[in-house]
Order: sequence, then C-alpha cells, then structure tokens
Amino acid sequence: MRAGVYDSGVGGLTVVKSLIQHKLFDEIIYFGDTARVPYGIKDKNTITRYSLEALEFFKNFDIDIMIAACNSVSAYAIDELKANAPFKVSGVIKPGVLALKNKIPNREAKILILGTNATINSGKYERLLNTHGYQNIESLAPSLFVPVVEEGLFNGKVLETVMRHYFEGITQPDAIILGCTHFPLISKEIQKFFPKAVLIHSGEAVVEFLEDAFGITETHENTQMKFFASENPDKLKEVAKRWLKD
Amino acid sequence: MRAGVYDSGVGGLTVVKSLIQHKLFDEIIYFGDTARVPYGIKDKNTITRYSLEALEFFKNFDIDIMIAACNSVSAYAIDELKANAPFKVSGVIKPGVLALKNKIPNREAKILILGTNATINSGKYERLLNTHGYQNIESLAPSLFVPVVEEGLFNGKVLETVMRHYFEGITQPDAIILGCTHFPLISKEIQKFFPKAVLIHSGEAVVEFLEDAFGITETHENTQMKFFASENPDKLKEVAKRWLKD
Repeated sequence: MRAGVYDSGVGGLTVVKSLIQHKLFDEIIYFGDTARVPYGIKDKNTITRYSLEALEFFKNFDIDIMIAACNSVSAYAIDELKANAPFKVSGVIKPGVLALKNKIPNREAKILILGTNATINSGKYERLLNTHGYQNIESLAPSLFVPVVEEGLFNGKVLETVMRHYFEGITQPDAIILGCTHFPLISKEIQKFFPKAVLIHSGEAVVEFLEDAFGITETHENTQMKFFASENPDKLKEVAKRWLKD
Repeated sequence: MRAGVYDSGVGGLTVVKSLIQHKLFDEIIYFGDTARVPYGIKDKNTITRYSLEALEFFKNFDIDIMIAACNSVSAYAIDELKANAPFKVSGVIKPGVLALKNKIPNREAKILILGTNATINSGKYERLLNTHGYQNIESLAPSLFVPVVEEGLFNGKVLETVMRHYFEGITQPDAIILGCTHFPLISKEIQKFFPKAVLIHSGEAVVEFLEDAFGITETHENTQMKFFASENPDKLKEVAKRWLKD
C-alpha cells in the first residue's frame, strides 16, 4: 500500500507520524507546498487551484490513496480532488468528526473547533457536526498559533499570552477538534487551558478512518518515506527527521 | 508619471501612503501577491520567480518606474528585475541605507536592522551599510511581527510580549531600519522599547531616493490608484481604504 500525503507545508508530518506509528503503508510520498505556505489565510479559489496542482504531482506516482492532511484543503477542495483523482482520496475533517463521535457520544456536549481562517470560514466541521446531531459548537480561528509553532515556540511566555488572547471568554468545552496540523504540537499547552476537554487529533482520526472506510489495516513492517517540497526540500527533511524520530 | 508598486501583500501600502502624501505620481498601479503572501519565509529562488512574474504583469501597463516595496524582493530579486525591466526599477534597501546616512552621519552609530528571515538572511542591508562605513550593526528577524500586524494587533499585550521576546538583550541602537513594510504600522510600539533610536521608514526613504536618483519631484495634484491582487482584491481595497484614508 502506498499513500501520498499532501500538506501546505511541514504541518502534515503530524499526520504522517500517526500513519507510521500504526504501520499502515509500505511507502508514503509526502508533498509540502512550502513555496506557497500558509494556506489558512487564503481563499477557496486559491486553495482549490493549489490542491489540483498537487493532485497532478501525485499522478506521477503509483499511489493507492491521497491524504489531504491540511485542514484548509479538506475544508475547501476535497470534493474537487475526489472528482479528479484516479485513486482514493481522504481529507481530515470527516475523520475528525467520526473520531469525535466515537469518543463523545453525548450530543449535548460542548465542542470547540480550532482551525485556520480558511477552515473556520468554510463552516465544514460545523455542518458535519450538525449532521451528526451536535449543536453546542463554538468555532475559533486563533490565527497566530501557526506562526508561533513555526517559530518553534511550543511553550513559554509568547505562546501563553497568545493562547490567553484567543481563549479568554471561552467556556470549558467537552471536546476540542485540533483542526490544523500544527496544533497537535501545542496540544499539551491547549490542554492546560481546558483540562477537562478531550482533544481530537487529525492524525489519529485519519488512522481510524482509513481502517473503517477503506479497510487499510496495520500490517506493514516499515514505512519508506519520500519527501518533496515546492521550495527548500532540505528544510522539510530536517524538520521530518526531528518530528518523526520516535 | 506613472508608478507600479509591487508587494507580497497589503504591506506595501505603507510605501504607497508616502508616495501619495508627497504627490510624486499621477497614477499608481498596485499589485499585491496576496495568493502567495508572505514572502519573508521563502527562499531566493521562489522570491525571484514570483518577482519576475510580477514584472510581466506590470509590462501590461505604461509605467515609468516599478517600485518593489517588499524588502524581501529588494533583498533577493532586485538585480533580476532591473536586468529584465523595460522601465526604471527601485527597491527599498538602497533608499533605506541612503536615508539613514542623511540622518545618522556618525559611522560609529549602532544600527539595528529589523526584517523578515529572507531580508535578514540575504545580508543585503548589512553589506550596503558596511560599504558606507557603518560597522556597528545588529540584524534581527522578529518573524512574528508580520502575523501579529496582519491580525490587527497594533498594540496591547500580545504585541508587547512578542516584542519583549525578540528585543530582550538588544542594547539601545542609535537607529533602527524598519526593513519590512509591516513594521511602520507598529513603529510607535518599537519606539517605546528604543526611545532614543531614529527610525528609518521605507516609504519616506523611497520618496527621498526617487527625487535624488531619478529626479521625480512633488508636482502632481492627485494620485489615481489602481489595485490588483492575486487573490481577493476586495480585501486589499478595503485595507487600502482604511490605511490610506488620511
């Protein structure tokens, strides 16, 4: 089994980490659009155009499934990808909602969705949660989280002040959807603000989803990795080495 | 006289503001590459490629001069622009250094350069300052300033904490080069940290430079503006209305 994982930059590596840990694939081809990162501040047309270009890239490889690890892509371009792909396609939004459903059966529960502006503005998580009976939903786009994580500030004063800026006035949720691939990297700090909340991580959600929806199971011994980036692939490889080293 | 002003996004409007105030042009064509913003995290090849595409765009207009308001473009792509343009080209780095020279003749003065990663890594300000005899130079890339400004946080706790993060341990400079079009929007707060420093603003520097180097003088009554963006031009126009309203 061979997967293509697509992200706007390095963030999708948090999803790759889960795929490797669960040994779902013989090979993963990773493409990060580092020359045009970040996607979360861009609009539907731009994100769709970039996503269809990434699809063309993956057509050069004999992959079984393309995984759009980027929530902004899943929010705006997943239908276009599915309509044009000669292989299976999975985003992260449907997997996230299904994972939440498994963990939080109570439909009265308060759900906090955290995502980029693109993801939140799309309203896609919210609509899908509504479909599954959840109504008590709050959506938040803490735009500075991505640059703070990119700056390597996974804890400390800057992150704390930025978190307080966005989280002030938010009542304790029962579950939080980490609707951006960067957010798992600061999940410990998010948990400190909301100690009672169950956190939904795209990587873990996708692993569950691939098994349930596509029957892709934990059978492969070692995952071979190939990295591609639209600029500076060496930097991507270096980050990958650091994040994936366990 | 007609100018084309090029920036990665909306930041170049701080330069446009100076051009309008000094009435240098009958018409300004503004192009913001909002679909691929920000440039400051990207590398030389990518920035050069995007800049040459912008040049092609400006060839559609009968302009007298193209002004690369973006410091990252000035840092990496100005020679390529000059080599390929059928009109005059100005960046902001040389103007910035010449403006500093006028204001701070003392070559022992301590100069602090603030810029994006691209601008700082290029070393272009530093080399040009050395050429003019300045040796006491410190360079800093406060990467979070741009996203904080984009988030509209021109003052308050988040900006203050972020500033302290980068400025702690920096000794008082005699002059600060605001080497990114976003930084004039938080110049008051920067001045609070370094009350004795003279701030060099790209917009004002370019106005001086256009007069000295190209003989473009304050003669035009009203400047007509035309705005173009690679995504969401309406958002650009709205920001322009707000920033340029005086």
